[in-house]
Amino acid sequence: MAAKSVKKVVLAYSGGLDTSVILKWLQQTYGCEVVTFTADLGQGEELEPARRKAELAGVKQIFVDDLRETFVKDFVFPMFRANALYEGQYLLGTSIARPLIAQRQIEIAEEVGADAVAHGATGKGNDQVRFELAYYALKPDVTVIAPWREWDLTSRTRLIEFAEKNQIQVTKDKRGEAPFSVDANLLHSSSEGKILEDPAVEADEIVYQRTISPENAPDVATTITMDFHNGDAVAINGVALSPATLLTELNALGKANGIGRLDLVENRFVGMKSRGIYETPGGTILLAAHRGIESITLDREAAHLKDSLMPRYAELIYNGFWFSPERRMLQALIDTSQGSVTGRVTLKLYKGNVTVIGRESPNSLYSMKVVTFEDDQGAYNQVDAQGFIKLQALRLRLGAAAGRRGGTP
Amino acid sequence: MAAKSVKKVVLAYSGGLDTSVILKWLQQTYGCEVVTFTADLGQGEELEPARRKAELAGVKQIFVDDLRETFVKDFVFPMFRANALYEGQYLLGTSIARPLIAQRQIEIAEEVGADAVAHGATGKGNDQVRFELAYYALKPDVTVIAPWREWDLTSRTRLIEFAEKNQIQVTKDKRGEAPFSVDANLLHSSSEGKILEDPAVEADEIVYQRTISPENAPDVATTITMDFHNGDAVAINGVALSPATLLTELNALGKANGIGRLDLVENRFVGMKSRGIYETPGGTILLAAHRGIESITLDREAAHLKDSLMPRYAELIYNGFWFSPERRMLQALIDTSQGSVTGRVTLKLYKGNVTVIGRESPNSLYSMKVVTFEDDQGAYNQVDAQGFIKLQALRLRLGAAAGRRGGTP
Amino acid sequence: MAAKSVKKVVLAYSGGLDTSVILKWLQQTYGCEVVTFTADLGQGEELEPARRKAELAGVKQIFVDDLRETFVKDFVFPMFRANALYEGQYLLGTSIARPLIAQRQIEIAEEVGADAVAHGATGKGNDQVRFELAYYALKPDVTVIAPWREWDLTSRTRLIEFAEKNQIQVTKDKRGEAPFSVDANLLHSSSEGKILEDPAVEADEIVYQRTISPENAPDVATTITMDFHNGDAVAINGVALSPATLLTELNALGKANGIGRLDLVENRFVGMKSRGIYETPGGTILLAAHRGIESITLDREAAHLKDSLMPRYAELIYNGFWFSPERRMLQALIDTSQGSVTGRVTLKLYKGNVTVIGRESPNSLYSMKVVTFEDDQGAYNQVDAQGFIKLQALRLRLGAAAGRRGGTP
Amino acid sequence: MAAKSVKKVVLAYSGGLDTSVILKWLQQTYGCEVVTFTADLGQGEELEPARRKAELAGVKQIFVDDLRETFVKDFVFPMFRANALYEGQYLLGTSIARPLIAQRQIEIAEEVGADAVAHGATGKGNDQVRFELAYYALKPDVTVIAPWREWDLTSRTRLIEFAEKNQIQVTKDKRGEAPFSVDANLLHSSSEGKILEDPAVEADEIVYQRTISPENAPDVATTITMDFHNGDAVAINGVALSPATLLTELNALGKANGIGRLDLVENRFVGMKSRGIYETPGGTILLAAHRGIESITLDREAAHLKDSLMPRYAELIYNGFWFSPERRMLQALIDTSQGSVTGRVTLKLYKGNVTVIGRESPNSLYSMKVVTFEDDQGAYNQVDAQGFIKLQALRLRLGAAAGRRGGTP
Repeated sequence: MAAKSVKKVVLAYSGGLDTSVILKWLQQTYGCEVVTFTADLGQGEELEPARRKAELAGVKQIFVDDLRETFVKDFVFPMFRANALYEGQYLLGTSIARPLIAQRQIEIAEEVGADAVAHGATGKGNDQVRFELAYYALKPDVTVIAPWREWDLTSRTRLIEFAEKNQIQVTKDKRGEAPFSVDANLLHSSSEGKILEDPAVEADEIVYQRTISPENAPDVATTITMDFHNGDAVAINGVALSPATLLTELNALGKANGIGRLDLVENRFVGMKSRGIYETPGGTILLAAHRGIESITLDREAAHLKDSLMPRYAELIYNGFWFSPERRMLQALIDTSQGSVTGRVTLKLYKGNVTVIGRESPNSLYSMKVVTFEDDQGAYNQVDAQGFIKLQALRLRLGAAAGRRGGTP
Repeated sequence: MAAKSVKKVVLAYSGGLDTSVILKWLQQTYGCEVVTFTADLGQGEELEPARRKAELAGVKQIFVDDLRETFVKDFVFPMFRANALYEGQYLLGTSIARPLIAQRQIEIAEEVGADAVAHGATGKGNDQVRFELAYYALKPDVTVIAPWREWDLTSRTRLIEFAEKNQIQVTKDKRGEAPFSVDANLLHSSSEGKILEDPAVEADEIVYQRTISPENAPDVATTITMDFHNGDAVAINGVALSPATLLTELNALGKANGIGRLDLVENRFVGMKSRGIYETPGGTILLAAHRGIESITLDREAAHLKDSLMPRYAELIYNGFWFSPERRMLQALIDTSQGSVTGRVTLKLYKGNVTVIGRESPNSLYSMKVVTFEDDQGAYNQVDAQGFIKLQALRLRLGAAAGRRGGTP
Repeated sequence: MAAKSVKKVVLAYSGGLDTSVILKWLQQTYGCEVVTFTADLGQGEELEPARRKAELAGVKQIFVDDLRETFVKDFVFPMFRANALYEGQYLLGTSIARPLIAQRQIEIAEEVGADAVAHGATGKGNDQVRFELAYYALKPDVTVIAPWREWDLTSRTRLIEFAEKNQIQVTKDKRGEAPFSVDANLLHSSSEGKILEDPAVEADEIVYQRTISPENAPDVATTITMDFHNGDAVAINGVALSPATLLTELNALGKANGIGRLDLVENRFVGMKSRGIYETPGGTILLAAHRGIESITLDREAAHLKDSLMPRYAELIYNGFWFSPERRMLQALIDTSQGSVTGRVTLKLYKGNVTVIGRESPNSLYSMKVVTFEDDQGAYNQVDAQGFIKLQALRLRLGAAAGRRGGTP
Repeated sequence: MAAKSVKKVVLAYSGGLDTSVILKWLQQTYGCEVVTFTADLGQGEELEPARRKAELAGVKQIFVDDLRETFVKDFVFPMFRANALYEGQYLLGTSIARPLIAQRQIEIAEEVGADAVAHGATGKGNDQVRFELAYYALKPDVTVIAPWREWDLTSRTRLIEFAEKNQIQVTKDKRGEAPFSVDANLLHSSSEGKILEDPAVEADEIVYQRTISPENAPDVATTITMDFHNGDAVAINGVALSPATLLTELNALGKANGIGRLDLVENRFVGMKSRGIYETPGGTILLAAHRGIESITLDREAAHLKDSLMPRYAELIYNGFWFSPERRMLQALIDTSQGSVTGRVTLKLYKGNVTVIGRESPNSLYSMKVVTFEDDQGAYNQVDAQGFIKLQALRLRLGAAAGRRGGTP
């Protein structure tokens, strides 16, 4: 693959070994100016070292942004309005961060007049797709550089050789192979590869970084309340919090109670199965709480419609189509349902379990008067049920009369 | 509502106070012969007392059947192939039992020449619908009697008066109001009503009957294996078990480890919200295990297609449409996917948590050779990803070029 | 069914024999004041006779409204944005009119302080459901009176006896049985019942009232253009027209060219099949034109998402759930897609055929540069297709390698 | 792209100029033995010339197969059971033929011990995807050669130069550019490219090859009957016909009556929009007839479930996933519904119109007794409708009571 002609490239730069090598490699291979962009998405690493390393590498335009509030408010929360789970289980922690990074990269590219963007994702994973689909959707003529698909630094040894030859600092712990690969942000931490590659073998406890184990969690439950407004969480235990602060607090609660671990074999968009260990402590609580408040405030058919479209919505995000017409259409549908999703949920956190134990709302559709086993004073006329059933059954009876017993088609 | 003309009616008879009153009420109101049918679906009650009570009430044709194996094999297992959850959470324990009871009732009706069937479900709940849709689908000209919608015994006091006036034994504990209402079978136990009617108030520990609390479960995890063949569980810890025996064993494991409790506000088919406490110890393990074995044996699009239709399938069962063409069509789709769902899952059970920690299968689609972070020796060509992404992005780029940035529709 | 206690009822009143009988029957049976509401939805009948008849019947508050523009703008057009077809064929002409009538009835009820509403739909059809669901959604405590389900005027003879006894004018043509029943509005005319009840027998030409037959249409085609803005039709042959005027003009074009006839057996919400003859001349052209402009302005996945949800949306409208959360959610999704659906379509109308023969738009996503068979100057790199296909095929290849040839699940 | 190492390749060979060039190019470029495969799918061309040309080119193993019956029976008919339409309009005539050609190619490859297959589809279209996905699904280790993506014969001039240099006969009409490109088989003929590339310009009459224009069709209608058995057409006018013979006969009827033309802008799987002119005379009649017989024999929910999944099924076929688990799963669902789809439909064919004017079936679910406007003698109790509506409305009333008027979510 011949090197494309590029004048200026915005690199998603973490400051770690890999993207430091990429930085240098871009400068050498493309002979172009590199602009670095380092984002704080709550991954738990300091950003200033990245700035210094970029300076050392001769970068003139360095962007370091704290995007945590934007991340939670404009990406995580909209996604949780959908109760999104990929393949029934995965809370999409990595998937939902990529579009934001890409969006900011493209903004910077416009700002500094860059014609290219680059990322450090490999050619086997989903992240390359997520980054690049977002780039193209936001700037269709941008040149995308994906060094891992292009270069010949295909082994750890060659990567480190390149680093050393180019005065890139290789810390001791990076010299050997990491036993697995990690991605982290405010929503979750994911681990995969290497020692995790055999799906028949249990993941070692050392893999888990964001949660203590259920076994080590306290022997007494923690009870909290969460308040929602129009589908988004706004307070914990009655204390109003900003989106990122709230998620940070939920993470602490989840971590302490061993909540949010997931050991999953999933299907990647590029066609293979992979195994990941996910830790989503706060998100796991948030999902349970959101379902809890929806259970009394959402109309049945609104809820079922959302549920029926959720897998598709989750798949879109997993596959990297955040910036697509179809995601926006589904989001409009979902958001339209959330105007009444306001109220308080009480949850019990205990050794890996999140249990909704109470819900209340000014918009509640739950009617004790109607549902009661006691005398309902005419709120519901039981005789109506007969007509309801008779007409529901009519087509089945006509079918049975035509010889199709028991719904044989 | 005028009493319909009925000659012989088959009553779903538990032997409890309510259906004993119904038995007598049917004899008096319809002046017809009553045939009783009592089924063992694993509810954990002896059936012989029901037979004796029926004899005392003058019933001549009494049917008492152990349907546990049929229940699990032909109803529970097919449903679990779909990973069915109603409203994202409910394992449909009550819903799936009703069609079997109704089916057997109709078989008996044909056998004894009855022209009517009767059940003890109230006019507010889902069960009346489930019973009656099944009746009509299997015998379209049957007369259905639902005493709770017809009679005037609308208070506990009047019911007990009727019982006493008619020599029906009222045990001491039935004399007062039960604090909540219970339905149970081999798959689950559900509790609702009375003290559970306020969804803001936590359910009391006394409500739980099938599981010990996570707090009281052992401090060490239990690890088990489950074997699947064509989508159905066939063995625990390597020991082959019949369907009902296997579910019984899973229930014991779940109960001991505090697994399978659910406190839910759900939407009934008849249009109201209700709150239920469900305990599905074995089913909760079974679902996790089935998802685990599917994760390595199901093709991605097969899995996603199933996931996208699951809410509809679950809704059908919840609403009582087991015997319908649409349920059979969806079942055909689901079953077609299960031919390769064979293999072994390892699970950890610990204080309410069920965690899949390993999966293996002769049919595994997981390819370590393809997914590896190490050199894959050409199993996957990373350069292919570029073309893949470029064509996935083409429509987004054309859209952006036409002025729709970021997928604005 | 005992007469409910009612003080004042708003009746949907056409001025015809049936609703005139209902008017009188309501006055007699409920001893209440009746307010009449007569709407012009483009059914092609004069409204002033209805006013006079209501006056003669002693009605004090008489409402006669021309709702044609509202009908097309707020009901027909939103529905056409979805390309809605019930059961693949029916353009929902009756279904879409009912919610508007009901909405206005409830507004009037609020205005005049009525506690009840009444309609003239029978107990077998869909219209009773559509009226009443709308009533309840807009005024949950309203009392609904459906005379056809309540009274004993169940034969034509008794109806006419009642009319004569009560000085209601029975025109000669109403004295005998009408050979079929008709509903009409600006969107369509439907005919059903009586001579149309046998679905094996062709409908007689006399049934058709809104269209000439294709055989009698001109021997030369009519070519027109239609302009769309944000998904709605705004002009014919370059002349801007209001919604109702535009549909009126399309009806004339369709009628003259024998367009829009449909002979259909459909499934009613109440559980039976029925046979209807529909004539939707303008709507048939509108649907073709809308699909035409969407074909160049809608993104592929936006279009496919709409298509996949269309049957559900159409079913909702058919079943009477216009005023429901789920319809509004779907509408939000659909409307979100229409912002770019602007441009011009050229259509040929000829003896029953509507053919899109040209489309153009400032927002077109069709790129001659990309699609051309000629040299595209790098707009599309054919080599990308290889990677695209390789990754699309990966899961199939892994499946085949695991022994599942040809996608055997 | 370096030439892969190939020993023997099976080429899908039409005998035309393009595939003749490919044949020679494969021999030269890959230095491998080429096996040709020419199929009769009803495209209306003689096959023997292809055999002779292959012999002249030195091919030793030549396969010429008449696949018409297989094509209709195992591909076209299963697809029509679904009423499949891509993007609401396209009958998938090209899409459905590709998997059969690919399947036979792979069978031949296995038979002759070939390690590669080749096709003549370009790198911009859908057909390359359809061929190759089928190849990979059936023989995962096969080498695929797509000359159009590989070679440098990218202009007509160079192609003809290559032909002349290699003694490939170039007929006079092939020397100039064809004004558009055609694909044909027993189901349809499609035309695209060149003079058709501007979607604003009407297609010229010369494009149409399979149908006369509605204008030129007879002035009197043709009435036919079609018989179906288990969802498949089996007879025309009472005469039993084999699948291919039946479709041939329908094509003649459609052609003569100007039926089945479509001018469409569609979305390709590879990401671009394209414009095609399709002629599907017999298929258009078949679809109308199949919908007609389903209208009286399919249960409502069975029909709606099919309709809701149809767009997905059609998309799968369009995209080339015939041999995939998800297509087989959907097929199982569809086929399960067709057991009762048996009976006779009467159709009127007139100048482009296909109208179902009658349907009858021994399995009919249409009940004149229930639907009648006359006295139904108790077949349907109109009072049941009240309870039906009341319970359907309950959630809407609870919503309205909670302040959400008119279904505001």
